Amino acid sequence: MTTSPRIGILGAGGRMGRTLIQAVHQAGYTLAAAVERPESSLVGADAGELAGIGALGVNVVATIEEALPHCDVVIDFTAPVATEAHLNACRAAKVAMVIGTTGLNDAQKALLQDAAKDIPVVYAANYSVGVNVSIKLLELAAKAFGDSVDIEIVEAHHRHKVDAPSGTALMMGEAVAHTLGRDLKEVAVYGREGITGPRDRQTIGFETIRGGDIVGEHTVMFIGEGERLEVKHTATSRMNFAGGAVRAAAWVSDKSLGRYDMLDVLNLK
Amino acid sequence: MTTSPRIGILGAGGRMGRTLIQAVHQAGYTLAAAVERPESSLVGADAGELAGIGALGVNVVATIEEALPHCDVVIDFTAPVATEAHLNACRAAKVAMVIGTTGLNDAQKALLQDAAKDIPVVYAANYSVGVNVSIKLLELAAKAFGDSVDIEIVEAHHRHKVDAPSGTALMMGEAVAHTLGRDLKEVAVYGREGITGPRDRQTIGFETIRGGDIVGEHTVMFIGEGERLEVKHTATSRMNFAGGAVRAAAWVSDKSLGRYDMLDVLNLK
Amino acid sequence: MTTSPRIGILGAGGRMGRTLIQAVHQAGYTLAAAVERPESSLVGADAGELAGIGALGVNVVATIEEALPHCDVVIDFTAPVATEAHLNACRAAKVAMVIGTTGLNDAQKALLQDAAKDIPVVYAANYSVGVNVSIKLLELAAKAFGDSVDIEIVEAHHRHKVDAPSGTALMMGEAVAHTLGRDLKEVAVYGREGITGPRDRQTIGFETIRGGDIVGEHTVMFIGEGERLEVKHTATSRMNFAGGAVRAAAWVSDKSLGRYDMLDVLNLK
Amino acid sequence: MTTSPRIGILGAGGRMGRTLIQAVHQAGYTLAAAVERPESSLVGADAGELAGIGALGVNVVATIEEALPHCDVVIDFTAPVATEAHLNACRAAKVAMVIGTTGLNDAQKALLQDAAKDIPVVYAANYSVGVNVSIKLLELAAKAFGDSVDIEIVEAHHRHKVDAPSGTALMMGEAVAHTLGRDLKEVAVYGREGITGPRDRQTIGFETIRGGDIVGEHTVMFIGEGERLEVKHTATSRMNFAGGAVRAAAWVSDKSLGRYDMLDVLNLK
Repeated sequence: MTTSPRIGILGAGGRMGRTLIQAVHQAGYTLAAAVERPESSLVGADAGELAGIGALGVNVVATIEEALPHCDVVIDFTAPVATEAHLNACRAAKVAMVIGTTGLNDAQKALLQDAAKDIPVVYAANYSVGVNVSIKLLELAAKAFGDSVDIEIVEAHHRHKVDAPSGTALMMGEAVAHTLGRDLKEVAVYGREGITGPRDRQTIGFETIRGGDIVGEHTVMFIGEGERLEVKHTATSRMNFAGGAVRAAAWVSDKSLGRYDMLDVLNLK
Repeated sequence: MTTSPRIGILGAGGRMGRTLIQAVHQAGYTLAAAVERPESSLVGADAGELAGIGALGVNVVATIEEALPHCDVVIDFTAPVATEAHLNACRAAKVAMVIGTTGLNDAQKALLQDAAKDIPVVYAANYSVGVNVSIKLLELAAKAFGDSVDIEIVEAHHRHKVDAPSGTALMMGEAVAHTLGRDLKEVAVYGREGITGPRDRQTIGFETIRGGDIVGEHTVMFIGEGERLEVKHTATSRMNFAGGAVRAAAWVSDKSLGRYDMLDVLNLK
Repeated sequence: MTTSPRIGILGAGGRMGRTLIQAVHQAGYTLAAAVERPESSLVGADAGELAGIGALGVNVVATIEEALPHCDVVIDFTAPVATEAHLNACRAAKVAMVIGTTGLNDAQKALLQDAAKDIPVVYAANYSVGVNVSIKLLELAAKAFGDSVDIEIVEAHHRHKVDAPSGTALMMGEAVAHTLGRDLKEVAVYGREGITGPRDRQTIGFETIRGGDIVGEHTVMFIGEGERLEVKHTATSRMNFAGGAVRAAAWVSDKSLGRYDMLDVLNLK
Repeated sequence: MTTSPRIGILGAGGRMGRTLIQAVHQAGYTLAAAVERPESSLVGADAGELAGIGALGVNVVATIEEALPHCDVVIDFTAPVATEAHLNACRAAKVAMVIGTTGLNDAQKALLQDAAKDIPVVYAANYSVGVNVSIKLLELAAKAFGDSVDIEIVEAHHRHKVDAPSGTALMMGEAVAHTLGRDLKEVAVYGREGITGPRDRQTIGFETIRGGDIVGEHTVMFIGEGERLEVKHTATSRMNFAGGAVRAAAWVSDKSLGRYDMLDVLNLK
């Protein structure tokens, strides 16, 4: 990249949209456009003021078509139906996409795959740089310790989360179990109460904390005799994911086409 | 106390006995005697060398009767049957006791209660100064936060521990629940897996970590919106309990009779 | 209070203003009004949409005079000159205030003191409930441990903070030092490098971490032989302070006049 | 190795010696011999009872010559002059060595190097498996994050440690700095006090905690916007180092000659 990528934010009025605007600004890139639904009272407002970082001279517009001519790449953390329309618009305008929308159905995923024949698309389950790095560290540590330690995974999320453990905790457990040749389904333990007997080394324990508005914390412990190694990732705001998405946007802005994920962006493959 | 108490250690060859010898030495008190079973190969060894702190000029003897004339107080972390005999010997010799033996049956407890009519006896479930202080902090925090936070208790112990959660974790949970007018039996949650739904504020979560040789860690979290308060106690060695027991021994050495616990010793009642 | 307090937010377009709108909503209270500077592009927007929580039917107005007739209490985290005008307006309209503005000069503080003869005013250096509770816990722990432990205070803040240690860390250090009869100026240690010699028990160590966008973390450690007690407060967002300010607003809304701080609100005096 | 290695412990009466006896036992290997100075009162005691793990049927002997015929490998965490004599004796008897003695002078190091022509010798600055693994993780994380995060290293040790930061903390700092192409001497910051200004990304901060009997804790933080990755190593007892030394002893017991370190043992080179 020789020039600063021109980045557009879709869903600019939502919490994630505003955080993406901040992230573009913090990374020193150019906010090229910001889009929100036509019926929102925020259309017309300055996107920087909306994001709480002072006027940027970019006013929120009501349609993606107004935005695309100003953009090399757009970031989309909206909803499946909106993302479907965005994919078609970007493909027509030859603008790259970074997609963080969750809950895409099979048809929408197929549409994404097909769009990647014409434009570059980054699509990842988790845009956190730190989570992606953590997985690599866990594989290395598990390999070095082998069966000489006990492994426990502690995670904490806000009180509104309805499932346990988190998808990220399970992903970390899978990475460790796979490295050690264990089947996570057989060795996972999700709670301990009463007379449990001594710990079986093959097990991997999950402890799930729920409370307040905790954004997301994951600690993997390798516990031996007289020592403990812990890898801990703490997400403290959407900025975690927004920063990764902006990094992906800058990385993908000069690609010509193809589908990528965060391991491509971080060169960790 | 105007003079240094003369302290004797029973069960001096065991791990706890050796740690007690170190704790007496570190506190600057006089090790007056050390006793081990007659059949042990350690009888006759220097008690300081046995404890790894260099020669103290006190050799391990084989009977409590040889030790008591040199002592103001003895510390007993042995076994119930041995403690029974020690109670009788100390009562006859008018020597104070600090007892940390676990698993006393009703008859042995009655004997202890009865002995306290003639000699001073400290008997506590947990000699850790920090654990006793923690309980007080938890009560104060629970009262101040009321129902405005979510409460979670995380504990960690070694892989050989056969029950969960620890007695100390439950004691902390009881202290918090009692302060908030909740019944711990009804509100305790011991694990989370699958679709749990959003968190119920009234619940108190317990997360139990097991691994390696962890001596004992307890963290109580008060989790609100945008903030978290944690009270964490970490025990890293028997020295934790040994130090508290020696503090109790010094405190009780000039009492004339009566039964006491650690809250008496720490003036926390 | 028999009815829900009607709360107005001044400086509603700033980051703290938006967070206060969220906090009012989360606490289940009525947002009665929202004020921003006349020249802001956000005047006229729905205050709820602005705060990212969906439309609340309250549009941002340009003057405090438009807002006060709808309010029992206003929350003001703006700037000294603005707060000066707000004090006069609230006094005239007999509306209670919660003030979190920093950097008031002596004349402004005198004005605040004088206004409290006619209206109730809460004014605190730190609105975090958890920080205020922490201070109480630290005093209790310091008293129980006395000189038997080493005390260390670790704090972490974002990379833009220009001073060290934080005011809150120093406030915690003062609380501990005062309880133990030490002079913080004499016993504080702010860094260790090279040959330091063994630790002097009377010292209180401060360790200052700076990085990223950490909102604020403070851990006070009481470190003994074989054990450690830690009291840790983590602020993860402005919601920490906003929640405390809203709690103060509800508490003060039915007082008739007088000046109060957070220890009054929390009944910790 | 098809058979269990026969391991001898030198300096068996010291704290490290006893811990090594425990570590041999826990690893399921055979304690073949235990040696202590002739003048010690512990000569003749059962080595298992001495280590607090129950009788093993191996009595402490007073000279290495009595021990070597029973051993494939000996572990030596004693003192430089003693290690010099042990090197000569092992070389003569063709017995492998694992050496953890600190403070060897140049002549002693040359002797060690020379002995490795006839017998296999493992010699490492730090026998902790976890510390060696940590270094590898830190290099990987530093490479992935590059200059996008702030790096801080927090370490904690007991109150008697006379220097700061610890050698291990500096080793971790060197690993990170080297990966990022920085000169640790130029970028290290050892304390923050007063008006420090905003943080310079190139710096690496060290925070040193001293208190109680903390064995050794090291946390390296990679702090970004909205996220933090931490690698934490906690040593809780000499067993940390003893376990690594026993692992080294088993690994080296069937080598014929040569000099090795822990990265060889752990296959991390």
